[in-house]
Amino acid sequence: MSTRYEVLLAGQGGQGLILAGVILAEAAATYDGKNVAQTQSYGPAARGGACKAEVVISDERIDYPKVTEANLLLALSQEACDKYCQDLRQDGVLIVDSILVHQVPTARAYRVPITKIAEEATGRRLMANIVALGLMVGLTGIVSREAIESAVAARAPTGTQELNLKALHAGLQLAENLKVRGH
Amino acid sequence: MSTRYEVLLAGQGGQGLILAGVILAEAAATYDGKNVAQTQSYGPAARGGACKAEVVISDERIDYPKVTEANLLLALSQEACDKYCQDLRQDGVLIVDSILVHQVPTARAYRVPITKIAEEATGRRLMANIVALGLMVGLTGIVSREAIESAVAARAPTGTQELNLKALHAGLQLAENLKVRGH
Repeated sequence: MSTRYEVLLAGQGGQGLILAGVILAEAAATYDGKNVAQTQSYGPAARGGACKAEVVISDERIDYPKVTEANLLLALSQEACDKYCQDLRQDGVLIVDSILVHQVPTARAYRVPITKIAEEATGRRLMANIVALGLMVGLTGIVSREAIESAVAARAPTGTQELNLKALHAGLQLAENLKVRGH
Repeated sequence: MSTRYEVLLAGQGGQGLILAGVILAEAAATYDGKNVAQTQSYGPAARGGACKAEVVISDERIDYPKVTEANLLLALSQEACDKYCQDLRQDGVLIVDSILVHQVPTARAYRVPITKIAEEATGRRLMANIVALGLMVGLTGIVSREAIESAVAARAPTGTQELNLKALHAGLQLAENLKVRGH
């Protein structure tokens, strides 16, 4: 059985998805001891505001560093959802921001007002990327809770550690609630 | 003639090389309109502190996102210099921190006390990654001066824009001096 796990984070520039990809990669590699490749590709689309980060996590050596068939897709814009849903495995997990994404091509998606929760928990909409990390880790267990906490704390700009951890815990708690409810 | 340009940034965790890679990628893509792939790979070595970021810049579509033969290598540790010098093209550019790297396998390297210059220009050794960006751009012209300024300003944590731009300009100025002197 392959241990390769592929994550795609997609949305718009300014949503912090690249930082979220870096944090998830560091959690898996530095704190959980996995092999990880983390990529962002920019094309002419970068000027139009689209943004995508990829994280491949494996127990084995990673030969191809990019996502071929995602196990987990986070979509923070309608455009991202439309474009990347086709790259999700049949049994893959889809998480969308329910305020930013209205049309979801599968009933199995987690629709969560991530940006709103970020604002409620921390007063900052820009913390949505960290709330999303908590949600992703809580729902899938791709990295350990300790690993993601350490990675978030290490990458948080000076003076914002507490706020970042608050956002992370809001996401983790939300995942627990969704699992209990069976969304 | 291929327009593919490959950059390897290598050193230790905590030196800000991943952020430097992200900033360089954003400068090339968002502000200069190039296609860019930016990758960091983490293995068990991540726990030991080694860190590497790769940036591939091209006018054309990028099929393989990783460095195969680097046009430019920045080495901020002896271990990184030892390990990645073999990945540098014959006509590639090597930049090392002369305080952190003592043995350089080629006479053609730029040996610059990057960390010391960061401390002198900004009071913070941690700005060495931004000084290095200025140095790299000034010496090679891989991205435009306007692009790297915009990207650094956009990625700087709140309240540190001025300090980051000061570090960048110290690196750019240093490159001018080196070019005049023919190092």
